[in-house]
Amino acid sequence: MAIPIVVLGCGTVGRALASEALSLGDEVRVLAVLDSSGGVVDPSGIPAGRLREILSFKEKGEGLGATGLAGEEAREAVHCLLSEERGVMVDATASEGTVGILLAALDQGWGVALANKRPLVGPWEDYRRLTTSGRLRYEATVGAGLPVISSLNSLLATGDEVYRIRGILSGTLGFLLHQVEVGVPFSQAVRAAMARGYTEPHPAEDLSGEDVARKALILARTLGLPLELRDVAVEPLCPPKLGELPVEEFLRELLPLDVKMQRRLEQAGRKGKVLRYLAEVSPEGARVGLVEVEWESPLSRARGPENLIVFETRRFREHPLVISGPGAGPASTAAGLLADIVRLGKEL
Amino acid sequence: MAIPIVVLGCGTVGRALASEALSLGDEVRVLAVLDSSGGVVDPSGIPAGRLREILSFKEKGEGLGATGLAGEEAREAVHCLLSEERGVMVDATASEGTVGILLAALDQGWGVALANKRPLVGPWEDYRRLTTSGRLRYEATVGAGLPVISSLNSLLATGDEVYRIRGILSGTLGFLLHQVEVGVPFSQAVRAAMARGYTEPHPAEDLSGEDVARKALILARTLGLPLELRDVAVEPLCPPKLGELPVEEFLRELLPLDVKMQRRLEQAGRKGKVLRYLAEVSPEGARVGLVEVEWESPLSRARGPENLIVFETRRFREHPLVISGPGAGPASTAAGLLADIVRLGKEL
Repeated sequence: MAIPIVVLGCGTVGRALASEALSLGDEVRVLAVLDSSGGVVDPSGIPAGRLREILSFKEKGEGLGATGLAGEEAREAVHCLLSEERGVMVDATASEGTVGILLAALDQGWGVALANKRPLVGPWEDYRRLTTSGRLRYEATVGAGLPVISSLNSLLATGDEVYRIRGILSGTLGFLLHQVEVGVPFSQAVRAAMARGYTEPHPAEDLSGEDVARKALILARTLGLPLELRDVAVEPLCPPKLGELPVEEFLRELLPLDVKMQRRLEQAGRKGKVLRYLAEVSPEGARVGLVEVEWESPLSRARGPENLIVFETRRFREHPLVISGPGAGPASTAAGLLADIVRLGKEL
Repeated sequence: MAIPIVVLGCGTVGRALASEALSLGDEVRVLAVLDSSGGVVDPSGIPAGRLREILSFKEKGEGLGATGLAGEEAREAVHCLLSEERGVMVDATASEGTVGILLAALDQGWGVALANKRPLVGPWEDYRRLTTSGRLRYEATVGAGLPVISSLNSLLATGDEVYRIRGILSGTLGFLLHQVEVGVPFSQAVRAAMARGYTEPHPAEDLSGEDVARKALILARTLGLPLELRDVAVEPLCPPKLGELPVEEFLRELLPLDVKMQRRLEQAGRKGKVLRYLAEVSPEGARVGLVEVEWESPLSRARGPENLIVFETRRFREHPLVISGPGAGPASTAAGLLADIVRLGKEL
């Protein structure tokens, strides 16, 4: 039986999910796709041909309001759907403004699957309200399609005790540090990451560490720690004020960091260690920043853009549980969303 | 609400599971524990004190028939339970003879969780009958407590296409090869593995590769391939006929293999590769044996007794999904069982 889904957001992740839904055929039925301009809503399921049309329309940079319902109308149509159907609402936006509609969906007995981290990193009270029903899942928010959250939930549900989670959760920063490791100056490594499309439009966003901090907070909250984002200590990879400069100027200002970064790497090297940008979460709290890691640690193995997460628990103590692979990108993120959708579909 | 469970087998795994159940308190209720001699059955749940008593009784090497019901009686009492209750039957034996009672449990709407590989590697028809209800889970049969089967199922359920699974699925053989890698002669490495309790009582069982073949078959069947155990090509690490010798004699007969193994390792080394004992499964079939692995491959990273599984799929192609950690031992196996029990408990 097809799982009805409503997709908020039609950027690269939303589109990758819609494509997967198309190739899955009968298993998922897309009732609505929304973006900030409006959306297309069809209570009996958007036909495959129309969905393909929407996707190519979006590829060209158009807003859905121009081919479907305009903003307010689209949201109203979705609210109507919530009481008529029972399905899964997918948040594939990067918006802070979706908490309201997600709570409305949960109230109506819907499941919710998030790729969007924002709803989970607002006030603790929002987090609690969103997660209390047990029908909200968020595999794709940490490590994209890697089974990070499901594995953590399984450890917790079976009474294991988590001592520490350490993870390389930014493919972008992983790539950067690996480049520096093989001799590329830091500022040039940033340019290389930009050229490959690994960074946000303004790379200062990646270098700030804020996105890794959001992931660390999600892991910490999953452990039950009632932390706020401000409680996560963050070591940025460049002075925060540089983020206000236009990109080209910003890149020039990174030059003085080349020597600094090289020196830190050498310091680590002299101790037989390597430098990794880690999220560290334990019952004591969460922090994000550069850490010198032993060569023997699984964390030293991650090279380039992959993510790698190490769980140290009561049961996985001497040898930790390690999960690694591509932790970003629309296809992998869509895979994480689909895993949640399928699980939620079984419980509806 | 406590999940009622019946535990077949009270060896190291069954006991580890019962201990975990005790420490979980209200979440799992043990209705029965059986071994080959008999069992203890209590439809309202074996009280914690009595369960502890049973465990220490077994630690001393006694059979449950001597403290509870004798064999046939115990099995009859369990059959009665099946129609009265709805719970999860756990197969923690190493027996080939449990298929009948497992099918009876499934017929009555029970869930089944396996640490025992045997029921899954008999005739395909048995496998089909056991798995057709969707209420049989077997996380602990491959990689013990590592989320191998659940991750594979998630990939399949979300429409991913699995191109190849390669895994180091024997901690014992992983330890052996690592020892050889650091210069220990093969036959001495076998003695070292024995001394650490890593091997079966007769190490020929490990060296035969048969246990890895069973895991490879389980992965292949999970992919939907209707293979039999005889279809899995196995390269043993010692001539099969040596297995008939008593252990001491067997160990002496391994001496001529020292040079052979050293030579294979050197051959691999000259190509810049390392030697790993792998299970390889793809839509084309399954095989188990020594493989020369590139230094860059995640498979080269496994050292010592840990397991490491690499999934290459349509979505995880350029960078595969990798899961690693302790893939054996009673505690880790019990963790895998518990994960299944909790999941099944939600669906009962």
